[in-house]
Amino acid sequence: MPRNMLVSLGGNAILKYTEEGTAQEQFENVETTSRHIVELIEEGYHVAITHGNGPQVGDILLVYELARKTLPPMPLDVCGAQSQGMIGYMLQLSLKNMLKAAGMARPVVTLLTQTLVHQDDPEFKMPTKPVGPFYTAMEASKLHEKRGWTVVNDSGRGYRRVVPSPLPVGFVEEKSIKTLFLEGTIVIASGGGGIPVIINEEGMLQGVEAVIDKDHAAAYLASLIEAEILLILTDVEKAALNYGKPGQRDIDHITVSEAEHYLQEGHFPPGNMGPKVESALTFLEKGGEKVIITSLEHAVDALKGNAGTTITKA
Amino acid sequence: MPRNMLVSLGGNAILKYTEEGTAQEQFENVETTSRHIVELIEEGYHVAITHGNGPQVGDILLVYELARKTLPPMPLDVCGAQSQGMIGYMLQLSLKNMLKAAGMARPVVTLLTQTLVHQDDPEFKMPTKPVGPFYTAMEASKLHEKRGWTVVNDSGRGYRRVVPSPLPVGFVEEKSIKTLFLEGTIVIASGGGGIPVIINEEGMLQGVEAVIDKDHAAAYLASLIEAEILLILTDVEKAALNYGKPGQRDIDHITVSEAEHYLQEGHFPPGNMGPKVESALTFLEKGGEKVIITSLEHAVDALKGNAGTTITKA
Repeated sequence: MPRNMLVSLGGNAILKYTEEGTAQEQFENVETTSRHIVELIEEGYHVAITHGNGPQVGDILLVYELARKTLPPMPLDVCGAQSQGMIGYMLQLSLKNMLKAAGMARPVVTLLTQTLVHQDDPEFKMPTKPVGPFYTAMEASKLHEKRGWTVVNDSGRGYRRVVPSPLPVGFVEEKSIKTLFLEGTIVIASGGGGIPVIINEEGMLQGVEAVIDKDHAAAYLASLIEAEILLILTDVEKAALNYGKPGQRDIDHITVSEAEHYLQEGHFPPGNMGPKVESALTFLEKGGEKVIITSLEHAVDALKGNAGTTITKA
Repeated sequence: MPRNMLVSLGGNAILKYTEEGTAQEQFENVETTSRHIVELIEEGYHVAITHGNGPQVGDILLVYELARKTLPPMPLDVCGAQSQGMIGYMLQLSLKNMLKAAGMARPVVTLLTQTLVHQDDPEFKMPTKPVGPFYTAMEASKLHEKRGWTVVNDSGRGYRRVVPSPLPVGFVEEKSIKTLFLEGTIVIASGGGGIPVIINEEGMLQGVEAVIDKDHAAAYLASLIEAEILLILTDVEKAALNYGKPGQRDIDHITVSEAEHYLQEGHFPPGNMGPKVESALTFLEKGGEKVIITSLEHAVDALKGNAGTTITKA
């Protein structure tokens, strides 16, 4: 019996911020990524996949801004849906090809995913997540007035829109995701954390302009599909204590209680390793067996216990 | 037992070419469309849904053109994938809401769909389908030189890019589509006819810049999911003989052999009623029971035999 695993890809598995952003670059990156994922399948894992969308949704927001004298810009939830379509297509095409190259045939499909968030999540009152292009102080002030955006000075590099980053509490499509995965399909879901939707006063679903942390959504997704392992891929081989400080020390293995302790001590920066370790803890609390944080290149070795950072209950 | 039906929505069920194209307009149109689809479900049908994407993919192509000094434009296959994400999101959100308003709960999900076409389809040598914005003669000549596009004079209104419109021969994701639909999920698939892919010389899937007629894809999809009925929604209540000519006569019911006869006589214009009738014939040949061509407003009446054009084997 294959073991169930959720693979969570960083946005840079598809497009690096330093790249120009052509479709060809993205297809090439996704092909490399898919080759590594197929290695995991060859090792006996049944995988579902989720992914970031930072660079892609940034580009989509930017093209709408640049074209806005001619065409109305789309809100962030719609741009997120577009990015799920774009990235999902590239992944499902490449995965089919890399499976075929390895002599395997499996169904692969992207399920467009809406992620439920609470309307009263504190983030809606105090948005923190920067999205889209930089603006001058004057543009920022106009955007606030005309479109009601919250625009803040981003580390002195210019002004940027900030949106809420609420916690995921479910997926509208969770039944379909679970059915297809457990029936043997390689499911790509919850891309970019999913399209954020609330249940409004009338009890109806409503899209909101927000960004859901993909690692938090990944923890929820991993539990949903009854994964034993959550594999969080990022650009470093291991998580570290005192990251970027004197005395930095890579972590091979920690338990939940050690991870909680280090998290409280501030070893894992927010917006980077922080949400990954938090997600790991959520998944393990809900019954998951093991979380591995590593890079794409080290994934197979890490699953054998020879690389990466492993987190387990005890 | 509910009866299985594929509902094929025209692009104007989501966005009319005369509209500005805001997300709000599209959400409002999709809500009306979803309300009508829920009426069909209340009548005892289990539905899958496919849809056109003409206005949306046109807008996506245009924003990339307008932004191209800053960001690389995406090829047509990637833009099609983006439009599937965008429209699928709006449909699955609205359908869930309209189901809830009617006191029903059903899983609804969009499956991102790649449509297989033959590399040697004659359309690849002689592209016929205009896409994207209009250009001047000089721009057209530059685009041909720089990007290898085929650009033609479109009925004297200006120059436009033309792309192949090959026939669909399968879906890469057909197993997943069928599994989910037959298990009770309202599946949205093959949006805009699906993302066109060929199997290249190396035996690998490869996206191509082409447009697949959504009605032809709908016929394939309807057979795949074992639909009894293919409901093709368009902007007229009935198909007609001598359409737009003296002696125009609406059609209530025709058989396959009558439809073939009228098709040969040129009663159904290409690019409009022609592909709809062709798709109807394909679906009925493969074992489908009934095709109805009508407008959204008349769908329920048409299913009861009181409106629209019905095509049956005999």
